Amino acid sequence: MATTDREREAMRRALTLARNGPRGLNPQVGAVLLSPAGDVLAEGWHRGAGTPHAEVDALSQLTPEAVRGATAVVTLEPCNHSGRTGPCADALIAAGVTRVVYAVTDPGRASAGGGAHLRTAGVDVESGVLEEEGRALLNSWLTVQQLGRPHVTVKWAQSLDGRGAADDGSSQWITGPQARADVHARRSAADAIIVGTGTLLADDPALTARQPDGSLYERQPRPVIIGTRATPQEAQVRRHPLPFIQDEGDDLPDLLDRLRELGIHRVFIEGGPSVASSFVRANLVDEVLIYLAPTLLGGSRVALADIGVETIAQQRRLAVSSVTSLGDDLLVLAHPTHTEQEN
Amino acid sequence: MATTDREREAMRRALTLARNGPRGLNPQVGAVLLSPAGDVLAEGWHRGAGTPHAEVDALSQLTPEAVRGATAVVTLEPCNHSGRTGPCADALIAAGVTRVVYAVTDPGRASAGGGAHLRTAGVDVESGVLEEEGRALLNSWLTVQQLGRPHVTVKWAQSLDGRGAADDGSSQWITGPQARADVHARRSAADAIIVGTGTLLADDPALTARQPDGSLYERQPRPVIIGTRATPQEAQVRRHPLPFIQDEGDDLPDLLDRLRELGIHRVFIEGGPSVASSFVRANLVDEVLIYLAPTLLGGSRVALADIGVETIAQQRRLAVSSVTSLGDDLLVLAHPTHTEQEN
Repeated sequence: MATTDREREAMRRALTLARNGPRGLNPQVGAVLLSPAGDVLAEGWHRGAGTPHAEVDALSQLTPEAVRGATAVVTLEPCNHSGRTGPCADALIAAGVTRVVYAVTDPGRASAGGGAHLRTAGVDVESGVLEEEGRALLNSWLTVQQLGRPHVTVKWAQSLDGRGAADDGSSQWITGPQARADVHARRSAADAIIVGTGTLLADDPALTARQPDGSLYERQPRPVIIGTRATPQEAQVRRHPLPFIQDEGDDLPDLLDRLRELGIHRVFIEGGPSVASSFVRANLVDEVLIYLAPTLLGGSRVALADIGVETIAQQRRLAVSSVTSLGDDLLVLAHPTHTEQEN
Repeated sequence: MATTDREREAMRRALTLARNGPRGLNPQVGAVLLSPAGDVLAEGWHRGAGTPHAEVDALSQLTPEAVRGATAVVTLEPCNHSGRTGPCADALIAAGVTRVVYAVTDPGRASAGGGAHLRTAGVDVESGVLEEEGRALLNSWLTVQQLGRPHVTVKWAQSLDGRGAADDGSSQWITGPQARADVHARRSAADAIIVGTGTLLADDPALTARQPDGSLYERQPRPVIIGTRATPQEAQVRRHPLPFIQDEGDDLPDLLDRLRELGIHRVFIEGGPSVASSFVRANLVDEVLIYLAPTLLGGSRVALADIGVETIAQQRRLAVSSVTSLGDDLLVLAHPTHTEQEN
């Protein structure tokens, strides 16, 4: 059966409802139950990990009689696994829902397959309705599902010859105000910002995302400090709007897992060289941002240190997506190609 | 008196004559002598250092009577100094030339001022006739006059993080075929190519400018090897069409002076890191070409080594003229700004 106008309208409503829920570990999902005549019976949305999924939230508002023969319009494919709540596909089948319309297919390893399960049970299933809008809403969550971990951006600023500072450690400012403004905007779009204790102790960064006038962006990344040295009592990061996390950094995949559990989808790694290098070496980088200042420094303060490449065949090839001028500086945005070439 | 059509025509002829001479230490200059009626009396050009200048070459073809009252049309301002030949301004005055038309003003420290000297002697002088064509002809020679030394381009290829090779020294090929073709075209446009003995012994480069099919460009740069270690008998550079020059590299300004004396206008420095760094450190660089390969290498093999920058205020700022895509690689073309900034 083709999608009706009423169903598309209900999907738009479900997408709006989804936004009521928190962006985090679980996806933002909305649901609308329609009667066979196409009237709205109930609405629901997911309020975060441990609470009922959107479909169940909507179902719970109706008597069993009212649900029978209804159509469920959901922004994400109903789940097929028992997490902290039971599988939604089973709940819909048990409730006697006869048709399910959803926008986005669930890419999760454990949770996917709800659509097929519903079909097997004789439910009429329609997928991909307003899929683009659905995917836009779930963008970073979908990335996390696909990667199995948060999306990782490594950023550094360097001279054209690859140095992050002069030999005495001085570096303020290699890059200009436009590059710095760009960094802050990207910080604000991230859920966490990672630095090493070396950077923390040397630069005492605030790790906030700030507008050019110094005021804070509304969205702030959670500060994460990697290393064993203690964070000083007077460190600026202690005045960050969000409490910082400190981690020894000896198991980066585990750290990313724990950040994911906290609902962190996008991680922004700001260095210094040893932290950036350890993520590159561990192949845990999805995006590389290099702010290239038009200057030469020479000397020993390389922006990226040892990444485990001993011979050219082990080089970490990237695909450059864009090169942008930011004032006098260049921003190179690149992605690992995950193939090691010898050409 | 305004320039006549006959004079402009004679200047075009003089520019053609100039090209008969060699490009080298001395400028390519042509001259045409016109009668008061505008008829061509004689033509001349400069055949290279130690031979008569173009004006004198033309004068020498006429009897003293024939020259009197003539107009000299010359591509470069007549010289005002006694080098290996006497000053041309005096020769023109002595010969009774009453008008001199030239294209390009001589920027030389010793040789300039011929126009003013002629005027003082009562000769009618017109400058800047077909100046653009004249400057195009003398392009690299004028640069040498202005700099007081050959024009120096330093080129290197590096990973995005500033490495020229992996830790074991392997580097073939970081950059792709389009970048390499670009390097060879630029080699062909240079008069000399400089490498260190480290590069020579490690890579055994041919130091020729080659077309993508492997054939040699017609114009080849003179190979110059810097360092004290001997060039092996079997080194490829010994099969270069031009004989190589070896220099200890302990006095780079003196080396450039000697290259200038050999008629070398444009020097292309190809490395390795220590040779490139020593020219940057000595502030003897006019152009920086960085071929940026989309890869990360980390490790110790930096493309540029110590350039004498100890603190950020000493950074060598550049102005980026262009960023060009060459296949997967980027070419950054930049020029030193010769101001050290702290921003």
